[in-house]
Amino acid sequence: MLVNHGMNQLASLSIARSYSFASSIAAVLRRQSFLIRARGGGVHNKVHSTKTEADAVSILRAITPTLDPTRHKGQAGKIAVIGGCREYTGAPYFAAISALKIGADLSHVFCTKDAAPVIKSYSPELIVHPVLEESYSVREEERKQVSAKVVAEVDKWMERFDCLVVGPGLGRDPFLLDCVSEIMKQARHSNVPIVVDGDGLFLVANSLHLVHGYPLAVLTPNVNEYKRLVQTVLKCEVDDADAHGQLSSLAKQIGGVTILRKGRSDLISDGDIVNSVSICGSPRRCGGQGDILSGSPFLLVLVLQYFYLGHAKPFVAADRNPTVLGCIAGSALLRKAASLAFETRKRSTLTTDIIECLGRSLEDICPAY
Amino acid sequence: MLVNHGMNQLASLSIARSYSFASSIAAVLRRQSFLIRARGGGVHNKVHSTKTEADAVSILRAITPTLDPTRHKGQAGKIAVIGGCREYTGAPYFAAISALKIGADLSHVFCTKDAAPVIKSYSPELIVHPVLEESYSVREEERKQVSAKVVAEVDKWMERFDCLVVGPGLGRDPFLLDCVSEIMKQARHSNVPIVVDGDGLFLVANSLHLVHGYPLAVLTPNVNEYKRLVQTVLKCEVDDADAHGQLSSLAKQIGGVTILRKGRSDLISDGDIVNSVSICGSPRRCGGQGDILSGSPFLLVLVLQYFYLGHAKPFVAADRNPTVLGCIAGSALLRKAASLAFETRKRSTLTTDIIECLGRSLEDICPAY
Repeated sequence: MLVNHGMNQLASLSIARSYSFASSIAAVLRRQSFLIRARGGGVHNKVHSTKTEADAVSILRAITPTLDPTRHKGQAGKIAVIGGCREYTGAPYFAAISALKIGADLSHVFCTKDAAPVIKSYSPELIVHPVLEESYSVREEERKQVSAKVVAEVDKWMERFDCLVVGPGLGRDPFLLDCVSEIMKQARHSNVPIVVDGDGLFLVANSLHLVHGYPLAVLTPNVNEYKRLVQTVLKCEVDDADAHGQLSSLAKQIGGVTILRKGRSDLISDGDIVNSVSICGSPRRCGGQGDILSGSPFLLVLVLQYFYLGHAKPFVAADRNPTVLGCIAGSALLRKAASLAFETRKRSTLTTDIIECLGRSLEDICPAY
Repeated sequence: MLVNHGMNQLASLSIARSYSFASSIAAVLRRQSFLIRARGGGVHNKVHSTKTEADAVSILRAITPTLDPTRHKGQAGKIAVIGGCREYTGAPYFAAISALKIGADLSHVFCTKDAAPVIKSYSPELIVHPVLEESYSVREEERKQVSAKVVAEVDKWMERFDCLVVGPGLGRDPFLLDCVSEIMKQARHSNVPIVVDGDGLFLVANSLHLVHGYPLAVLTPNVNEYKRLVQTVLKCEVDDADAHGQLSSLAKQIGGVTILRKGRSDLISDGDIVNSVSICGSPRRCGGQGDILSGSPFLLVLVLQYFYLGHAKPFVAADRNPTVLGCIAGSALLRKAASLAFETRKRSTLTTDIIECLGRSLEDICPAY
C-alpha cells in the first residue's frame, strides 16, 4: 500500500525538487568527479550489509524534480537504447517510450536497418537510428570496416546521452554483439551510465570485463538471466534460501555493479546493502514488462545528477549509492503502473497497457504540481 | 445466457485453480506421457457417442488458472503462429494477439519476409520471425537448401512452444506449404499441440497424413473449409440434416483428431462425443473472426497441462478429451467477446473490436480475483 502524499517529510524537501540540469560537456566532467568519489569511498560509506524493504515511494518523491518552465529540451534527460534486430522490435520500443512516459525529454534507439522502420512506426516520439548490422548482411572481409563505422555512428552521439540502455531486443548475432561490446567500452570511457538488460546480459555474462568494476553499470536480470549470471560468475546454482546473500556476492564479484533482480519482490544490491521493493505489482507476466524497467533509467539519471551537482542532501546522499536509488525508484514506478493496468485489464493486461499507466503511476506518487 | 458466477460449484474448485506450470523440457516429457495415455485409452474412456450442448462456461471457469505472483514470464503459455505471407498479414496478427489477450505470456509469429514488418507494426507485443519463403523469391536450384534452413529456423524454437497454430494468412504457395509440412512434422515429433486453420486446412486436406492419428491436432474449419474436408475425406457433400454424425465420422476418419466446425452453433468432436456451443455470439461475420478462435489455443494448453500435471479432477478428467475441452472453452470465450463487441459496435463490429472484448469476456465469465 502506498503512503499518502505529504505523509513523508522527505517527499516535500525543497532541495529535492529545485535543482537545475547541466550541459552535456559539463556532465562528463561531473560524471568523472562522481566516479572519483564513488571509487574513493568519499560518497559511499560501505560499512554495513543489511537487508531492507526500501522506502521506494519516498525515494521516488525525493528525486522527482519540479517541472521548471525555464528549462529547455533535453535538460530532463536524454536516453539511448541499443537494441532492435530482425527478430525483435517490441522490446527496444518499450524501453525507449517508457523513458519518455516518465519524463525524459528525448529517447533514441540504435537498432539494425531491418528493425528501424518498424520501431519508427510504433511511435513518432522516438528518434530511431538504423545503424547496427547483423552477420547476414555483412561479408567477412568487410567486417572490420563496418564495425568501426557502426561504433563511430553511435559514438558521435555518446556525449549527449545521460544514460545508455543496452540489450532490449538486441538478439545474439555474434557480429552485432561484437559491435555492441565496443559501444559499451566507449560509453564507459565517457562515463555514461549503462543499464544492461535482455540479450545485453547474455553478452555481459560472456564478457564480464565490459561492466566489471564500473560503478555506473546496472544489470536488470529476470529469472533466467539471473540464473545464467550466477552460474557464470559464482559457479553455482541460484539459492533462493539465501537470495539476499547471493545477490550481494554476485554484485561484489562483478566489482560492485548494481544488480536489480526482477521477481515477485525486486531485489537490488551493489554488493553492500540489499534492498527489496515489494509494493503493488501485477500477477501477469506478459513479455515486454521487463523492458519498461530497463527503460526507466531516467530515474537513475535524476539521482546521478543530484550527485554531480552537489545537491545530495540527507535523504539521497552520503551512504546511498545513486544507482541503487535509481533502481529502487524505477522498480516502484513500474510496479505501481502494473497494478494500475491490472485493475482495469485483468488477465488481458499487456505491456502497452502498463506503459499507458506510467504517467498516472508517477502522478499518484508524486503530483506534478 | 451465461450462468451467474458462483452458480456452479465446479467453477470454484480450488484444485482447478491452484496448479503450477513446468519448464519446457519437462513439458515435452509430459506431452509424451499424455500421448501414451491418450492412445492407450487410459485417460479417455471412449465408449459412447452422444450429442450434447456443452457446459462451456463451467469448463472455461474450471480450466482458467488463478493468477500466481510467484510465476515468471512464459509459464502461462508460449504460442507460435505459422502464417503471414505477401498477401495476408491480418490473420496471423489476430491469432497471435488473441492468445496474449486471454492470458498467454508470449506470442510468436513465423511469416514471410514481406509480411514481417507489417505484422510487427500492428503490435510491439508480438515476436515476429521473418523466416518463411515463397516460390517467387527462391530459385529452383536453391529450394532444397532454403527449405532446410526455414525448417531449422522454426525447429530451434519448437521445444519452447506450448502450442503451434498453423494456417492463418498462410497463403497457398506450393514451396511455402512444403516447408510448413516439414514444420508440422517437427512439431508432431516434439509432441507440440497443433491447431490448424485457414490455408493450413487446405494443406491438410491434401496431406491428411500430417495430422492423421495425432491426438494433439485440432482442426477449426469454417463453412467452406469444412466442405472441402468432407469432400476430400468422406467423398460426399455436407449433410446438415446429420451434422453431428457427419462431423463425428470425419474426425474418426482422420484418426481421432479434434474438429471444431465453426458456425451458428460451433460443433466439436473427436469422433466420440459431439459437443455444441451455442451461447452468445454475434450476427456479424466479419473476416478475421475465425482467427481469434485459432488463436485461443492458450485454453487448449491449459487443459493439456491439467492432464500433464495429473491435476485432472472429476470435472476435466477421465472421460473427457482435453483437446475437446480446449475447443469448447475457446468457442465460448470468442462467442461471448463477439456478443459484447456487437452490443456496442452493431453493424460496424470488426475483428479488432472483438479482440478488445476478449479480456472482458474472460473476466465476466471467470473473474481474475
